[in-house]
Amino acid sequence: MAMIGKLVVCGVGLIGGSFAMALRKAGAVRHIVGIGRSREALSRALALGVIDEASDSWAEALDGANLVLLAPPVGQMEQVMQAMAPHLGDRTVVMDAGSTKRDVIEAIYRHLGPQLGNVVPAHPIAGAERSGVDAAFAELYEGRKVVLTPLPENEPSAVLAVREAWEACGATIHEMPAQDHDRVFAAVSHLPHLLAFGLVHDLAGRANAEQLFGFAAGGFRDFTRIAGSHPEMWRDICIANRQALLAELDEYLAELAYLRALLLSGDSERLEQHFSEARAARNTWAEQFAKASSSE
Amino acid sequence: MAMIGKLVVCGVGLIGGSFAMALRKAGAVRHIVGIGRSREALSRALALGVIDEASDSWAEALDGANLVLLAPPVGQMEQVMQAMAPHLGDRTVVMDAGSTKRDVIEAIYRHLGPQLGNVVPAHPIAGAERSGVDAAFAELYEGRKVVLTPLPENEPSAVLAVREAWEACGATIHEMPAQDHDRVFAAVSHLPHLLAFGLVHDLAGRANAEQLFGFAAGGFRDFTRIAGSHPEMWRDICIANRQALLAELDEYLAELAYLRALLLSGDSERLEQHFSEARAARNTWAEQFAKASSSE
Repeated sequence: MAMIGKLVVCGVGLIGGSFAMALRKAGAVRHIVGIGRSREALSRALALGVIDEASDSWAEALDGANLVLLAPPVGQMEQVMQAMAPHLGDRTVVMDAGSTKRDVIEAIYRHLGPQLGNVVPAHPIAGAERSGVDAAFAELYEGRKVVLTPLPENEPSAVLAVREAWEACGATIHEMPAQDHDRVFAAVSHLPHLLAFGLVHDLAGRANAEQLFGFAAGGFRDFTRIAGSHPEMWRDICIANRQALLAELDEYLAELAYLRALLLSGDSERLEQHFSEARAARNTWAEQFAKASSSE
Repeated sequence: MAMIGKLVVCGVGLIGGSFAMALRKAGAVRHIVGIGRSREALSRALALGVIDEASDSWAEALDGANLVLLAPPVGQMEQVMQAMAPHLGDRTVVMDAGSTKRDVIEAIYRHLGPQLGNVVPAHPIAGAERSGVDAAFAELYEGRKVVLTPLPENEPSAVLAVREAWEACGATIHEMPAQDHDRVFAAVSHLPHLLAFGLVHDLAGRANAEQLFGFAAGGFRDFTRIAGSHPEMWRDICIANRQALLAELDEYLAELAYLRALLLSGDSERLEQHFSEARAARNTWAEQFAKASSSE
């Protein structure tokens, strides 16, 4: 890949910080500029050597930039695009790192119309409950998937530049339509988060909450781990993707209605069959996932 | 505690096998007899030295027995009690290890009426997705909780013998009414299992299941870990405790209906508040749980 002369990272947290560190480790970047709403976070990123320069001016930051990663909280994407738009040159490639894609694409059309050829929607499948630049590390993307949902207007050269940058971080690249992306992640990520937050909230509100939590054990710990995730981030994701999330939630409610009926009628045969099929699917997946995670 | 001269374990799997191994390690037992429906499992337990003797006769096994642990699948508890009842002497203390208690107590009243003083309902909070005697180990109960739901008819000496046996395994003992037990575990264990089985089953049945699972990651892995649990065991637990489980499921469905309304109306403020409260409760619990698990 071509060396990235100047990289701009907007939002130097876990995602943006790890991207910067990975590219630097790969020797794929010369100069890294951080920009974002929190001066404190930028100073910290500078102190840690994650970025070379902290900027509070899009005009300065974008001057001569080859690649920009937009990794602010999803809910701030619009303001960020609005602020950068007047300063974005013709030769700068831009990508985001948002967990939802249709809302980001709408914002791109709304604010970055003149640069559509160079703005590539992307979603690295990484990250965790932890956040902030202190949690960032160069290996975060190794063996992880990055989903691109390119626009029809995207220049092949811009998509290629984005692919190469993520590949330099050790990720594997997948492309799909934005609508498919949002449906897939509503099912395997956003819904489970909603369900876990919901269960913990439900129990925490009970009169005997202390007793309940007192007897919760390892199964509960793992099931609710994602309820420890960042509330603002997940609020933004759920709201941004609420159309697909509501569709998934309704499918799941139908599933629960069926299980409820089996319980009510005491249909142990169908219940066992249901559990067996779920276990088989889960174990098959878990084996493949473990293999993929360890071999990469 | 008094040395257990003869211990009988019915169902020498993870739970029964680990109990036998723990008592032997503690030097608290002289002779261990295994009994159960599977000759193969008993031979394996014998070969592993978990038991000293495999029996297929309750008359022989119970002759001179001081303590009996009933650890068959929950669904077989009735048959086991029926089979042992005619041979159960006045001085043998019996306990079960079932995950549900009201159904076990009903079976005790039905089949072990003459020995009520010595039959103590118990539930060790341990175990996992793994099962079978090969998964058993002496430390399984160290630092774990065991819940006793004694009958009004229980002799204090029998309850004490049961307490001491579990304490010798390294467990801490809690007592509560059976109804409370079943409600607590419906909330923190049985419902999460049902929800996890349900989600995996839902996704596995989709036309694009392969694509969905292909993008599932670490959050999904932890959330669905308990969907890898034993289908027959969880069928039995769900059916045995279906009254409390249905009540918990309905509470949870009300919670999901509320979250659904927040999504529909795009109420990001309440959604974030909900997530924040859930995260705070989850993190507080997780810290305490980790501390309790490591210090014991």
